[in-house]
Amino acid sequence: MNKELRHFIDTNDFTKEELMEIIHLSMKIKECIKAGYYPPLLKNKSLGMIFQQVSTRTRVSFETAMEQLGGHAEYFGPGMMQLGGHETIEDTARVLSQLLDIVMARVISHDSIVALAKYSTIPVLNGMSDYNHPTQVIADVITIMENLPQGKKLEDCKVVYCGDATQTGFSVGSICTKLGMDFAFFGPKSHQYNEHHISVLNANAAVSGSKWIMTEDPDEAMAGADFVYGDVWVGLYENELPYEDRMAIFHPKYQINKELLAKGNLGVKVLHALPANRGEEITDEVIDSNLSICWQEAGNRLTAMRGLLVYFTRYRKEPSEAKKAAAREELEIFMREHDLVD
Amino acid sequence: MNKELRHFIDTNDFTKEELMEIIHLSMKIKECIKAGYYPPLLKNKSLGMIFQQVSTRTRVSFETAMEQLGGHAEYFGPGMMQLGGHETIEDTARVLSQLLDIVMARVISHDSIVALAKYSTIPVLNGMSDYNHPTQVIADVITIMENLPQGKKLEDCKVVYCGDATQTGFSVGSICTKLGMDFAFFGPKSHQYNEHHISVLNANAAVSGSKWIMTEDPDEAMAGADFVYGDVWVGLYENELPYEDRMAIFHPKYQINKELLAKGNLGVKVLHALPANRGEEITDEVIDSNLSICWQEAGNRLTAMRGLLVYFTRYRKEPSEAKKAAAREELEIFMREHDLVD
Amino acid sequence: MNKELRHFIDTNDFTKEELMEIIHLSMKIKECIKAGYYPPLLKNKSLGMIFQQVSTRTRVSFETAMEQLGGHAEYFGPGMMQLGGHETIEDTARVLSQLLDIVMARVISHDSIVALAKYSTIPVLNGMSDYNHPTQVIADVITIMENLPQGKKLEDCKVVYCGDATQTGFSVGSICTKLGMDFAFFGPKSHQYNEHHISVLNANAAVSGSKWIMTEDPDEAMAGADFVYGDVWVGLYENELPYEDRMAIFHPKYQINKELLAKGNLGVKVLHALPANRGEEITDEVIDSNLSICWQEAGNRLTAMRGLLVYFTRYRKEPSEAKKAAAREELEIFMREHDLVD
Repeated sequence: MNKELRHFIDTNDFTKEELMEIIHLSMKIKECIKAGYYPPLLKNKSLGMIFQQVSTRTRVSFETAMEQLGGHAEYFGPGMMQLGGHETIEDTARVLSQLLDIVMARVISHDSIVALAKYSTIPVLNGMSDYNHPTQVIADVITIMENLPQGKKLEDCKVVYCGDATQTGFSVGSICTKLGMDFAFFGPKSHQYNEHHISVLNANAAVSGSKWIMTEDPDEAMAGADFVYGDVWVGLYENELPYEDRMAIFHPKYQINKELLAKGNLGVKVLHALPANRGEEITDEVIDSNLSICWQEAGNRLTAMRGLLVYFTRYRKEPSEAKKAAAREELEIFMREHDLVD
Repeated sequence: MNKELRHFIDTNDFTKEELMEIIHLSMKIKECIKAGYYPPLLKNKSLGMIFQQVSTRTRVSFETAMEQLGGHAEYFGPGMMQLGGHETIEDTARVLSQLLDIVMARVISHDSIVALAKYSTIPVLNGMSDYNHPTQVIADVITIMENLPQGKKLEDCKVVYCGDATQTGFSVGSICTKLGMDFAFFGPKSHQYNEHHISVLNANAAVSGSKWIMTEDPDEAMAGADFVYGDVWVGLYENELPYEDRMAIFHPKYQINKELLAKGNLGVKVLHALPANRGEEITDEVIDSNLSICWQEAGNRLTAMRGLLVYFTRYRKEPSEAKKAAAREELEIFMREHDLVD
Repeated sequence: MNKELRHFIDTNDFTKEELMEIIHLSMKIKECIKAGYYPPLLKNKSLGMIFQQVSTRTRVSFETAMEQLGGHAEYFGPGMMQLGGHETIEDTARVLSQLLDIVMARVISHDSIVALAKYSTIPVLNGMSDYNHPTQVIADVITIMENLPQGKKLEDCKVVYCGDATQTGFSVGSICTKLGMDFAFFGPKSHQYNEHHISVLNANAAVSGSKWIMTEDPDEAMAGADFVYGDVWVGLYENELPYEDRMAIFHPKYQINKELLAKGNLGVKVLHALPANRGEEITDEVIDSNLSICWQEAGNRLTAMRGLLVYFTRYRKEPSEAKKAAAREELEIFMREHDLVD
């Protein structure tokens, strides 16, 4: 790796090789933990977790990841730390950089995470914004790697994303095209990718050789599909259409159900960022079947966080043992002189 | 112990021998910590703590217990994690089972903790529901064990619970009869145990030989009492009677005061689950006297949590050292190859 | 040090020598951490953090300090733990003393922290009240020590505090006069120190030889100034004057700007407790200049917390190794007998 301070705001800021390095690192650490060895790679490190919105998976996976690897996570929920309220984001970034080793934020507006990273002198990780969800898709690719169809490499696979071009939906298309997988966005014209999204995917595909399409035709979308990916249709945005109107747009055509899966490859697997609105974007039958790998995917949120946290804290050079020992001795002398030893 | 995944939803799901095993384990760990040795029995383990209601003692004792034994606790307060909101409890249980090692919940409705346990593949501990309060009474029995009257065994003691058949009140009767202690519920007819409670206590007593009564007569209740137990009369429920009406029912007859204590054995000790409404269910004089062991009891919340957390995480088999070493070596090779070492 | 249980409610409860001991201890630990050695001086210790008001710097610095030195911090935000609600502060203090090793509180009313300390049998640290802000000024003095003008000792320096006699403003004057520094309060008559404040500073100065003044004259205040200290003018209190009225009182006369700094010593440095209202009590130009040491000061919140936490937990005598080993062996025998080993 390139040993300099970097932030994880968008998977697209990284090369395919860098992303695969993060993914493989995550998988190696997972193997260790499965074998009962918890590598202390985040020892003495403190992560600040800023959540402008409540979260289950992102919060738990970041916190457990830090603690399993010897570090610590501090939780700041909605209202507990402002970004750009009575203190500028710039100043908050400067202060946190003095008190923590790394920071993650789930933000309402993508601008906030960009500003936080700009003024921070510690790594900043994007725990989801209104624009994208990069840590989620690292977990997704890990889950795909663990479930490759017989005889296929990652680049041989096709992923179909169903539904609405949410921030997760954009990140899925972005990483698939970056890594050279084939990709289909299957959703209604009114909720497909925008011009910016399209330009990102096209640029990625031009480099990686990925083929990608955007379609309302389930047969075209599902042809040769190895993985189908779902996300909620409602409840994500402030100013979204009323529930009935959104359901009328998506249901039942874009639902992940047995009939849709039958149009893909035999044994096509199902991913979902969760939480799922069962009966809406996915049927109980599918999510509870053995084609569903979404619980494993949820577990890989933790796998991904461990890898990301280790990767982005590697930029700091460890002081020499001699320096450590000298500082320790000075402290111990001081404490003995002042009767501060137990 | 029986090495399988079990949940701690109700003390009555366990035999007397199992409960005593948990209690003795808790007391042994307490001895270690008093002696300055913190056994790392929860190393690398992460506990999720879900609180549907605010709590002081339960939360602090769980969190401190995890940290003292080398693990970590993650706090989810009211509104921070739903149980059965936009995600089913079933799905939340599945996800948390991927990201944590053990989970506790203080729930509004007992159904929630039962559902959480049903779908979890990690141990679930009940941090109080509207039905019972099992961790509290483990702490209570420990406190009783530490304060046995001269020459008496646990089974020789009589406990009197005063007041309202709250969830704590039920759990006290339930564990006393399970363990073979004598027990009296001293409270007004309108607030005594219901049919279900009675059937549980009767079934327990039939096995253990415990004698128990339910009475409005203070002399009958207190005859031979070694321990008197209080809980609040008001403020626990949504739809309870107005303050004045509840006070009229309980006060002063069911108050723990000097006069009531005089009806019990000489040196009868006083327990209280806390917080106390001083001047209502207990007088200042009593709670601040040396017959009061309720601060020690509060400290034993921590004693109990340590034992429970250790006991319920023992079901997992530790991987072999050879496996650990192999995984570690693979990770270290990967990190060197990718220049990820500091 | 004096090995007894003490609380940190007010810097003025301590001698100059004790405060300097805390400051030097903090600086020694900082050196260790800069050198990569994290002394485990708070191993197995649990800190309770009670916040009646939201805080960034105080909370993060306490939590990071505990974790870096091997301990753990538990966060209780506004509404999560009452001080004097349905449980008396006295009882809360007794309970927390059973479950934690040390506690800090940021309180609305100074009475609360005093009561908490009175009934606690563990150390209580004041994380700011409406009266004072003692942990902040330990950080401030450390920052001054790190930025002493060429050839000067701490006692040779003059500090000018600008603006309103906030709790921070009082603590700054209090510690400067205690440590023998010269000090000026530069603020409008209506918002200068009260009689109590004045008596504290006078008493300190009589012992230390500090010279201090309170003035509306910028030239008098700034003459010979080595450090200028700012705090917000608005937003701190419930019943404060309307924004415009407060601004009319303070702005622009008491603002820290280039013109004011020009009246002090060459190279006068600027401190600020943060968060700053840029353009009000301090200009962008000043806070972003290289005379500003307020980011370093924010980092020293962490430096100070580490020193304070270590200092105030030193009162407990460590049990002997023999006792530890005996307790450990007893536990291990019990666990083997009950098949509780992994």
